[in-house]
Amino acid sequence: MSETKRVWLFEEGSAKMRDELGGKGANLCEMTNIGLPVPPGFTVTTATCNEYTKLGGQLPNGLLDEVKVALAKVEASLGKKLGDASNPLLLSVRSGAKFSMPGMMDTVLNLGLNDETVQGLIKQTDNPRFVYDSYRRFLMMLSDVALSNATNKLSKHDFEHIFYELKTELGAKEDLDIDADGLKELVTRYKKYILVQSGREFPQDVYEQLKMAIEAVFKSWNNERAFIYRRREKISDDIGTAVNIQSMVFGNQGEDCGTGVAFTRNPSTGERLVFGEYLMNAQGEDVVAGVRTPMPIQELANQNPAIYSQFNDICNKLESHYKDMQDIEFTIEHNKLFILQCRSGKRTGPAAVKTAVDMVGEGLITKDAALARVNPELLNQCLHPIIKPGSKYTVIARGLPAGPGAAAGIAVFDAATAAELGKGGKGQKVILVRADTSPDDLKGMLASEGVLTERGGMTSHAALVARGFGIPTVAGCSEISVDGNKKQFNAGGKIIKEGDYISLDGALGEVIEGTVEVVDPELTGEFGTLLQWADETRKLGIRANADTPEDVELAIKFGAEGVGLCRTEHMFFGDERRPIVQAMILAESDEERKVQLDKLLLFQRDDFALIFKALQGRPATIRLIDPPLHEFLPNLETLIEEVAANKALGKVDNEKVDLLAKVQSMHEINPMMGLRGVRLSIVFPQIVEMQTKAILQGAINAKLQGHDPHPEIMIPLVGHVNELKSVRANLERVAAEVEKADGTTIDYSFGTMIEIPRAALTADEIAKESDFFSFGTNDLTQMTFGFSRDDSDRFLKPYVEQKILPGDPFESIDQSGVGQLMEIAVAKGRGVKPKLKLGICGEHGGEPASIAFCHKIGLNYVSCSPFRVPIARLAAAQANLTDSGSGRDR
Amino acid sequence: MSETKRVWLFEEGSAKMRDELGGKGANLCEMTNIGLPVPPGFTVTTATCNEYTKLGGQLPNGLLDEVKVALAKVEASLGKKLGDASNPLLLSVRSGAKFSMPGMMDTVLNLGLNDETVQGLIKQTDNPRFVYDSYRRFLMMLSDVALSNATNKLSKHDFEHIFYELKTELGAKEDLDIDADGLKELVTRYKKYILVQSGREFPQDVYEQLKMAIEAVFKSWNNERAFIYRRREKISDDIGTAVNIQSMVFGNQGEDCGTGVAFTRNPSTGERLVFGEYLMNAQGEDVVAGVRTPMPIQELANQNPAIYSQFNDICNKLESHYKDMQDIEFTIEHNKLFILQCRSGKRTGPAAVKTAVDMVGEGLITKDAALARVNPELLNQCLHPIIKPGSKYTVIARGLPAGPGAAAGIAVFDAATAAELGKGGKGQKVILVRADTSPDDLKGMLASEGVLTERGGMTSHAALVARGFGIPTVAGCSEISVDGNKKQFNAGGKIIKEGDYISLDGALGEVIEGTVEVVDPELTGEFGTLLQWADETRKLGIRANADTPEDVELAIKFGAEGVGLCRTEHMFFGDERRPIVQAMILAESDEERKVQLDKLLLFQRDDFALIFKALQGRPATIRLIDPPLHEFLPNLETLIEEVAANKALGKVDNEKVDLLAKVQSMHEINPMMGLRGVRLSIVFPQIVEMQTKAILQGAINAKLQGHDPHPEIMIPLVGHVNELKSVRANLERVAAEVEKADGTTIDYSFGTMIEIPRAALTADEIAKESDFFSFGTNDLTQMTFGFSRDDSDRFLKPYVEQKILPGDPFESIDQSGVGQLMEIAVAKGRGVKPKLKLGICGEHGGEPASIAFCHKIGLNYVSCSPFRVPIARLAAAQANLTDSGSGRDR
Repeated sequence: MSETKRVWLFEEGSAKMRDELGGKGANLCEMTNIGLPVPPGFTVTTATCNEYTKLGGQLPNGLLDEVKVALAKVEASLGKKLGDASNPLLLSVRSGAKFSMPGMMDTVLNLGLNDETVQGLIKQTDNPRFVYDSYRRFLMMLSDVALSNATNKLSKHDFEHIFYELKTELGAKEDLDIDADGLKELVTRYKKYILVQSGREFPQDVYEQLKMAIEAVFKSWNNERAFIYRRREKISDDIGTAVNIQSMVFGNQGEDCGTGVAFTRNPSTGERLVFGEYLMNAQGEDVVAGVRTPMPIQELANQNPAIYSQFNDICNKLESHYKDMQDIEFTIEHNKLFILQCRSGKRTGPAAVKTAVDMVGEGLITKDAALARVNPELLNQCLHPIIKPGSKYTVIARGLPAGPGAAAGIAVFDAATAAELGKGGKGQKVILVRADTSPDDLKGMLASEGVLTERGGMTSHAALVARGFGIPTVAGCSEISVDGNKKQFNAGGKIIKEGDYISLDGALGEVIEGTVEVVDPELTGEFGTLLQWADETRKLGIRANADTPEDVELAIKFGAEGVGLCRTEHMFFGDERRPIVQAMILAESDEERKVQLDKLLLFQRDDFALIFKALQGRPATIRLIDPPLHEFLPNLETLIEEVAANKALGKVDNEKVDLLAKVQSMHEINPMMGLRGVRLSIVFPQIVEMQTKAILQGAINAKLQGHDPHPEIMIPLVGHVNELKSVRANLERVAAEVEKADGTTIDYSFGTMIEIPRAALTADEIAKESDFFSFGTNDLTQMTFGFSRDDSDRFLKPYVEQKILPGDPFESIDQSGVGQLMEIAVAKGRGVKPKLKLGICGEHGGEPASIAFCHKIGLNYVSCSPFRVPIARLAAAQANLTDSGSGRDR
Repeated sequence: MSETKRVWLFEEGSAKMRDELGGKGANLCEMTNIGLPVPPGFTVTTATCNEYTKLGGQLPNGLLDEVKVALAKVEASLGKKLGDASNPLLLSVRSGAKFSMPGMMDTVLNLGLNDETVQGLIKQTDNPRFVYDSYRRFLMMLSDVALSNATNKLSKHDFEHIFYELKTELGAKEDLDIDADGLKELVTRYKKYILVQSGREFPQDVYEQLKMAIEAVFKSWNNERAFIYRRREKISDDIGTAVNIQSMVFGNQGEDCGTGVAFTRNPSTGERLVFGEYLMNAQGEDVVAGVRTPMPIQELANQNPAIYSQFNDICNKLESHYKDMQDIEFTIEHNKLFILQCRSGKRTGPAAVKTAVDMVGEGLITKDAALARVNPELLNQCLHPIIKPGSKYTVIARGLPAGPGAAAGIAVFDAATAAELGKGGKGQKVILVRADTSPDDLKGMLASEGVLTERGGMTSHAALVARGFGIPTVAGCSEISVDGNKKQFNAGGKIIKEGDYISLDGALGEVIEGTVEVVDPELTGEFGTLLQWADETRKLGIRANADTPEDVELAIKFGAEGVGLCRTEHMFFGDERRPIVQAMILAESDEERKVQLDKLLLFQRDDFALIFKALQGRPATIRLIDPPLHEFLPNLETLIEEVAANKALGKVDNEKVDLLAKVQSMHEINPMMGLRGVRLSIVFPQIVEMQTKAILQGAINAKLQGHDPHPEIMIPLVGHVNELKSVRANLERVAAEVEKADGTTIDYSFGTMIEIPRAALTADEIAKESDFFSFGTNDLTQMTFGFSRDDSDRFLKPYVEQKILPGDPFESIDQSGVGQLMEIAVAKGRGVKPKLKLGICGEHGGEPASIAFCHKIGLNYVSCSPFRVPIARLAAAQANLTDSGSGRDR
């Protein structure tokens, strides 16, 4: 016996042991202990999985002895024995990690069947068809997960082909058309296939079967799709999976049997009504795999009112016990209900919001708990685009509304093509169309705008992934027929081929011909309530990064309290302006440059006036020109090509040659660290003088129209206090001149970004010259790591894959490095100016973990893109709850 | 009267008041007080200069009253009065900052002369020629510095031209050929020129003259050449200049008068013999300006033994008093000796070393004082290249050996052209050839490899600058005649034109036709002694950056204790290797890549074996490949041109098109922050595996030959501990395999560079995985500031000029930013590993101020280029002296 207990009977554990027993195991224990009808069984710990991995794929010594001890107790309680020829116990062997990874790991059912126990079971059940059906399933499952390997491939596809051949021989259409003798023959053929293909007989020793199944589950922890899933979901590879070994109950023993999956509330909408599906005379995998289309759970009220009522009671009991919406698997065996699993139900963003807000109304949870419970990223789904109301379009098919939002793109018919063409690949918009999806399709699904499947219900793999990752999905769309080989589908006679445009409305389950226009949703109801609670709870201010009046309006609609970053160089683009900007840059003299700047002044002044108007009195942090000037000029490589081609052909184009010379002279080897930001303001002060004039004049114009502008002028890329000192003095002079000329005053201030490591390190000096700091964590991350974001893909991907870095530091703030610099800057800045206003305007400002960090180090606000404002509001509230020890009621 | 005393009589001050009175003023006080024959006078403080600047160019109220009080005391002591028609006092008005800035600021002599006092002085001296000569000089000097301005230019050149015309009219050749009447006429013409040109009469009021002269000196503190000089010498602009107002004595009253300049020892060699020059019947400027070629000081022993003997006594007295070699100005007035100035004598590197070592032998100073006294940068001159011994070349002229070292380049004939073509300009090697030089030529001289002048002695402007800045210089080369207009010179009939190659031997004073080969000097004698003392005193170790066995040998010759940085990628260059490297990079498969790496292995293995051999048991820190791979590939822009030209002409060159595609795919937007350093080791581990193999096999080969290799393998660009952990584990495996295969062991270690800000911030984590740290302050400076060194010229120059930054942070460590990160890294690293070995291998490792900083923060060693090793040894000793409060004996 080992020192640590590796095997826990369900009556020994509890819901608190998720770390040790995995989510499924811990909940099986909990349900057993609160008296729910759970088939007896036991769980092998997650730590054992890690032992297995460390031992290079060997079960630790003593484990099987422990398993046998637990098994003996299960056998005693049921009066059956594993491998007993007359009264055999059958087992299910399932994975179960701390965090749910649906379908990613292996499962073996009906374990304990062999040529001998089959006979005993037939005698016992008097149902040879059921027994041979169970046996053939078991043969296939154990072969697939435990006997198959790289050299001796036992593919599910081959098993299915053998079954298909038999059905053809026997003239059968459906599986159910095959009788016991047919299945007996199938078992014989399966066993022969196994022998020929793997070179060994299917194991008849039930303990060997059990050992193989346990090993298979542990091994599946490290399969590729599980890795991909964990990386995407940020689940650690170190936590391992438990193995749940449970006595089988059968939903496929006849018409008084069945199996189903249900949520205690609607996982798409949050509606308070049990929501699920079941199939009579079936095993669980038939429901989940989407091979047969199941019945809605409410149908059970007609078919078997007593069971339905019992099930409803159990749902209520579980919700009050767990204080959360539950996802439940159940089986009915000869009119007896068994609960096989429960877990916190995955839900869409709208469902998460509604459930949380409703449960507060129901007195189940507190407001703080409601705020703490909703993953801010899920709000994305509440903001998901919808088809523009009033749009005209042709619906060519209808299926299940399995994933939120609308999507449009070209149809592709396999996951590999989707991954190649879609997000992370060539960046095209693709819709993945499949007969049904399997975990192997995950990568392709994540690369797609939307997913369409012919088969499978709301709890099918495709639907789970759709909700988990917010992918617009129409599932179980039986109105289409997909031909994967021909790469096309038929929707009522209309043929859609690979490359044709289609659209999906995931909320309505509609498949649409061609492309539709998608627009942003309205925010109302529970969404508004939750965010109002968030606003009451959070301490951080929320601003938005917005460069245009339209962006500002959107940001305010989403709850922004001001603009944290207005990038003025974006105002240099546009057909009308770009030639002026280029002429300004290429000017040979200050006078010539001034002519162009005077033209730009008029544009920017009007831009700012409109922005101040849209802000309705809220503050705006306006960043002076930041990028290197050559970014506004024609592309160097294109010019080289053109000039070289002209030269080869003897053509004379002196203008182009001169332009090339100028562009070449301004070219930089590392433009990220070149002549940009405040450096531009020192070398070419005229540009920012114009911008300051435009801001002040724009503010004065807005004021004259009755608005209340508060420009905060931000000088980027400061690394030494003298840069700020020098530029600020010059621009204050310009601002004062404008005010004097117009005879009015504006409430403006000057501040800087902290985005250069040296600025953070010398923030005490810089604070003396600055009214505010805004952390530019994009650049700060680039320079603190020495990672050029433009070039880092080629090493950041392997870095994250090889776990050199815990994640992409451009997504979530690297707290120990970049964050350390931020903490230094906060301490030094506030040491000099205790009331110094501090914000963040890098993209991290909309990322929940980074927002929590910003809260922790005492920033005044975060600023993010308008669409992330709601996420930031909720994340900021959660940060304050965590900080004050509240929230997280379990 | 002001609260602060602005005017100090010489008897009131002392040598300790350099801050307040400037170097010249303080020494005039000191000499007065130790009883030397100093003409009475007083000094206006440096603080007054700053007041003047702050007042926008106004003398502060009350100053002139203070001056008059002091003047009255001088008048009383001499029995003369300024402006007195019968017994007039004449004054000199000279600048004098804390640090000597020879010739950079303005001087006015003979002040107090006007049409009235001229008559009194003639009566008194009975020497009308002397009086008119003095008056005409005074007219020119005061006009030049005080009456001339941008609109009314009174140029020295015009004055000289007027004199030249007069000489021609009178048929005179030399100035001395003109008699009193001629000079009287000259005075009349000068006054007329002044009136016509400036619109005003030359001021006759002696107090107005004095006020103008004082203002002129203050104004000259801010003239352009003074700025250039201070920037070059790193003298602050804030310290201001004092004004020394002193009663005149005259070296030009007749043949029993004279003036001279002398050093108490030879400033070129350090030889202990008074070294100087004098002219009889002349004023000081005649000696310094180099217009007449003066006599060696020893000649005075024949001409006037009593004065010579007195002068020698004064030299000895000054040396024992100041305990340093002095630079003395003196005047003989009717056989009476006056000392007008003394200061610590500027000297060449060899002279500085010899003087310091000799003075220890003489018991004048301690070893510590000797070490503290020599500016480490001066050692450069001891290492100055010499003409390769045994070279054959043609000497076309001989002059004075005014500046150390040999130089070769093209002849240019004006400072502007030198500045344009030479260092800091187009980077060509130029030799500036002038009739004589003036302070206006400084910029051009600094841009030149060497300087050649036709006129001027060893104390001429050209010679002073040459020694001060270590510019190989031949001065007073009367064998040539320079024609500045034609841009050529004639050396005994040989015409050298602009653009022709010439060479100089500054040590021998030779002018050579064409280009010679220059080689490095031998180090012996006092140089060795001083550096031995330095070695005994310093705590910092000194290593060298060396990539080849030749570099290693040179470094050891200069005293390096090991190699601190061996850049392995330099071993990838060379005609034989580059094609292999390119094939390796362009390889399509790992197998193909391995074939090329196996070839490179053989080369690098032999390289390392030779390096270990050259090191003779000393350690070598070997950096694994650092630059991005595309640096080894053909230039992208050239390829684009070629392919575009081919395309235009319809030529097919698929190989080039493919190469372009590959180069383009590897192109990076910011290569400094791209796929390089440790990132390469993670993405393409094969390269560093090969390098590690080569290091270990090279070490084993060296060991087999009886050598004692100690490789320290350095992994560059680490920003996160996991990078180091991962690569180290892999390379330790490789190293162990090599050791196992060869059945031997090598004393190797693994460490990292700290050159990424994040590495410094997380040095505690990194130290756990690292045997040593080496600060890569080049990259650390780039990333801490966000300055790309390749691109920063366009803003760093204006930054330094506008004083946004105190200096170029790539030259001397930015202690408050980059240095702060280093301190963090030292504290965190040593916090985890108290004995962690710490070094620096950026270029700062050879810069004295940075070395002092490295000493202060507790590094174990600095590493620099072989030629800077002696400088680093001395700087490290000085750092320790400063640290322990020793050294600096005054």
